[in-house]
Amino acid sequence: MTAPATEIDRAIDRSGLRPVGAPTEVVVARDVAEVQETVRRAAAAGTPLITRGAGSGLAGGAVAGEGAIVLDLSRLTRIRAIDPVDGTAEVEAGVITADLDAAARAHGLMYAPDPGSVGISTVGGNIATNAGGLRGAKYGVTRDAVLSVDVVLADGSLVRLGRPTIKGVTGYDLAGLVVGSEGTLGIVVAARVRLLPAPQRVATASAFFATLEDAARAVAAIAVSGARPAVLEILDGATLGAIDAASGTALRAQGEALLLAQTDGFGAAEEMAVVLAAVAPTATHHEWTEDAERAADLLSARRQALPALERIGRPLIEDIAVPRSRLAEAISGIRLIADRHGVPIFVFGHAGDGNLHPIIVVEPGEGDLPETAVRAADDIFALALSLGGTVTAEHGVGRLKREWARRELGEDAVRLHDEIKRVFDPLGILNPGSGY
Amino acid sequence: MTAPATEIDRAIDRSGLRPVGAPTEVVVARDVAEVQETVRRAAAAGTPLITRGAGSGLAGGAVAGEGAIVLDLSRLTRIRAIDPVDGTAEVEAGVITADLDAAARAHGLMYAPDPGSVGISTVGGNIATNAGGLRGAKYGVTRDAVLSVDVVLADGSLVRLGRPTIKGVTGYDLAGLVVGSEGTLGIVVAARVRLLPAPQRVATASAFFATLEDAARAVAAIAVSGARPAVLEILDGATLGAIDAASGTALRAQGEALLLAQTDGFGAAEEMAVVLAAVAPTATHHEWTEDAERAADLLSARRQALPALERIGRPLIEDIAVPRSRLAEAISGIRLIADRHGVPIFVFGHAGDGNLHPIIVVEPGEGDLPETAVRAADDIFALALSLGGTVTAEHGVGRLKREWARRELGEDAVRLHDEIKRVFDPLGILNPGSGY
Ligand SMILES: Cc1cc2nc3c(=O)[nH]c(=O)nc-3n(C[C@H](O)[C@H](O)[C@H](O)COP(=O)(O)OP(=O)(O)OC[C@H]3O[C@@H](n4cnc5c(N)ncnc54)[C@H](O)[C@@H]3O)c2cc1C
Ligand SMILES: Cc1cc2nc3c(=O)[nH]c(=O)nc-3n(C[C@H](O)[C@H](O)[C@H](O)COP(=O)(O)OP(=O)(O)OC[C@H]3O[C@@H](n4cnc5c(N)ncnc54)[C@H](O)[C@@H]3O)c2cc1C
Repeated sequence: MTAPATEIDRAIDRSGLRPVGAPTEVVVARDVAEVQETVRRAAAAGTPLITRGAGSGLAGGAVAGEGAIVLDLSRLTRIRAIDPVDGTAEVEAGVITADLDAAARAHGLMYAPDPGSVGISTVGGNIATNAGGLRGAKYGVTRDAVLSVDVVLADGSLVRLGRPTIKGVTGYDLAGLVVGSEGTLGIVVAARVRLLPAPQRVATASAFFATLEDAARAVAAIAVSGARPAVLEILDGATLGAIDAASGTALRAQGEALLLAQTDGFGAAEEMAVVLAAVAPTATHHEWTEDAERAADLLSARRQALPALERIGRPLIEDIAVPRSRLAEAISGIRLIADRHGVPIFVFGHAGDGNLHPIIVVEPGEGDLPETAVRAADDIFALALSLGGTVTAEHGVGRLKREWARRELGEDAVRLHDEIKRVFDPLGILNPGSGY
Repeated sequence: MTAPATEIDRAIDRSGLRPVGAPTEVVVARDVAEVQETVRRAAAAGTPLITRGAGSGLAGGAVAGEGAIVLDLSRLTRIRAIDPVDGTAEVEAGVITADLDAAARAHGLMYAPDPGSVGISTVGGNIATNAGGLRGAKYGVTRDAVLSVDVVLADGSLVRLGRPTIKGVTGYDLAGLVVGSEGTLGIVVAARVRLLPAPQRVATASAFFATLEDAARAVAAIAVSGARPAVLEILDGATLGAIDAASGTALRAQGEALLLAQTDGFGAAEEMAVVLAAVAPTATHHEWTEDAERAADLLSARRQALPALERIGRPLIEDIAVPRSRLAEAISGIRLIADRHGVPIFVFGHAGDGNLHPIIVVEPGEGDLPETAVRAADDIFALALSLGGTVTAEHGVGRLKREWARRELGEDAVRLHDEIKRVFDPLGILNPGSGY
């Protein structure tokens, strides 16, 4: 099925990056055969092919410009099977992440990876970006949930990579190689993923701190407490202020930093007590609950963070991670960068993984970003690397972070990347200009 | 350091496979520079290089014959750092798995992957085979614990692949590609691995069943019970009999199958109650404990299984996995195969992962295996594939399972393997004749 090529929505993602020119064609695939046919056509003509799921990406990975074919998989929405005893599901690439989780919950199971975009992103897009999420602190990322992938290769052939079972070591981990490859090695049309028992009990807490550094110290204390929270989110005072402005709450009055924690499993309450004991010495005030509604209330601040910032201006969303022991340094460093360049930087993130999202907010509008914002972003990347961290923890390299990704990887690793890319895509038609 | 090349111990592993001829040289590396120098020498001469850790492998992966250089990494035993707040450790390849775990425990942490060989195998060997283990049902396999690897490539260069932090998506998952590559893509000299909080509470149970199929049904019931045991092992009556003969226990009198389960975490006891409720309808008798000594008693049957079988004869150790819902069929199928070929087959394994180790025991002695044993093994592989399973869940392909691995992977995937192998090892010097 071909949609009007002028449809700008299908040529962009949520990064704010705008393409140069318009794609020549948008294919909204109805089945795998149409994906294969489109790839064969692109290969024959040497046309760049930009695969997209929901376009919720934040790295410019699905941005398609002049001369490209856009291959939209959002209509491949079939959940082919859920096997509760095996703890697996077979899904097509376009299934919305939350829909898969809901289908699993009907069997007392869950699909663990839960990016903030869970209600709009596709499983295929999650696989392509190796999406993380709120529950990552305990349950890991998309890579940890993927057993096998059905991939259309650059010549249009369809191959299943990975293992059918929970464990398996036959051959190289090629499914793992495709996970996080951002549409540059092949097109994921379906996957077999792991489901886990949905937790029987969940405890949720919020804790406020006088400073962001105090909150970072609490994260370190939790890390050595013996507890393993499923969720451990951090929000800074500026972000709390933005949420207050957007939703009429009074969060910032309670502190300059907020931690949100969730423990789950049969001992959720006991584990939460350990978390709170670790937090208590530095927190100004904390509370916790096993009530689902109150828990949703506590967590709603986190879900509202990005929308609240989008009301203020145009957010440039970064995505660094540092070793947890360097979180406080990273946070102070980001504050210095904001001061140095005179740009507002809001900070929230998945603290349990050392993953911070510094958000630089600039004047609303289209076009190039102001030079100060770009320089502040560069300084944030440099800071992450200097602290032994990474320039992208979960959003991916896309079109926005290529230069810094190469700096992080180093020449030797980049050479291996180039050669592996050539193995999978000798003509270079799969999402050129994006990824590592 | 060069050891005498006649040292047969350093040319074999625990698979029973015997090399043809003796290696020309055994290098017991004292540092990374010596690894690099050895690889450069092998590359210059085009000599096959067989890397080994402890030689505890069961797939013939470290078996070195005529004309090969053996590169032994067992002396690279330094634990370079443990960072409790980050939850990471940096270790050299030759560190014994149990030593890493013990070092982590001193900080209230654990190294989760725990193959039955934990007391003898090396972390480098575990990485090369993507070793599983008893706790795999909850904590996954070695792949899940590896953040980055320091790899000496086939040209002697040293490169770090992977991410420094718990999460990270910069570039392709090349560390994950090296994990499980069985020494065919590069030589792992060190790694950064993840540590997790050691569980505060542990509950251990044993349950006996009248038939192995009943035990398999209990595994399925546990899978949908909402519990997620850390350990879920199965042993058949024949294996129980062998353990009784070796250690004077009376296990087999209690049933024709034994399940061993362990739950851990803050709600270990509550979770165990759920496991036992799932087991109760089919079990003839069960017990559980939170006492560490009694727990070790219960689990000791599992640890004694292989040694007990080794007293009876020469064990040919298989390693299939099937979807958990097909466990009962796999077990009945194995029994039919034993009858058909008139060979004794003992069955135990990591039931929580659908991973069975059918052990064909033949007359003691060296030399070729009897034809009946080989044909029974082939039928076991075919059975695994026909049930939607894999021919190797955790031991690896090595030199023993190449033909079946290729059948499982299929032509298209094998072609990708060949090309990736060429990227890393264009001269084909790294462990030729072994892996996928
Ligand atoms: C409000 C909000 C919150 C977010 N929170 C998180 C979060 O917590 N964690 C996180 O990791 N991300 C988060 N994201 C980012 C984004 O949602 C994820 O990257 C998500 O995985 C993208 O899925 P998608 O279907 O929208 O993919 P798209 O944006 O359409 O594509 C993303 C990339 O994957 C490629 N691609 C997509 N589908 C396929 C396919 N089937 N085969 C091959 N390549 C493909 C594209 O070419 C592109 O490079 C958030 C985004 C928003 C807007
Ligand atoms: C009693 C017993 C119980 C076992 N239980 C389990 C179990 O529960 N789960 C499980 O998965 N396995 C198990 N095994 C198998 C074995 O212990 C594992 O495969 C282990 O990971 C091998 O480690 P090793 O150091 O002995 O490696 P080796 O046997 O020396 O080598 C194994 C393979 O890895 C390669 N290799 C070794 N080190 C490196 C390196 N540093 N860089 C690159 N390549 C390398 C070798 O070339 C070879 O192909 C068991 C074995 C025994 C004897």
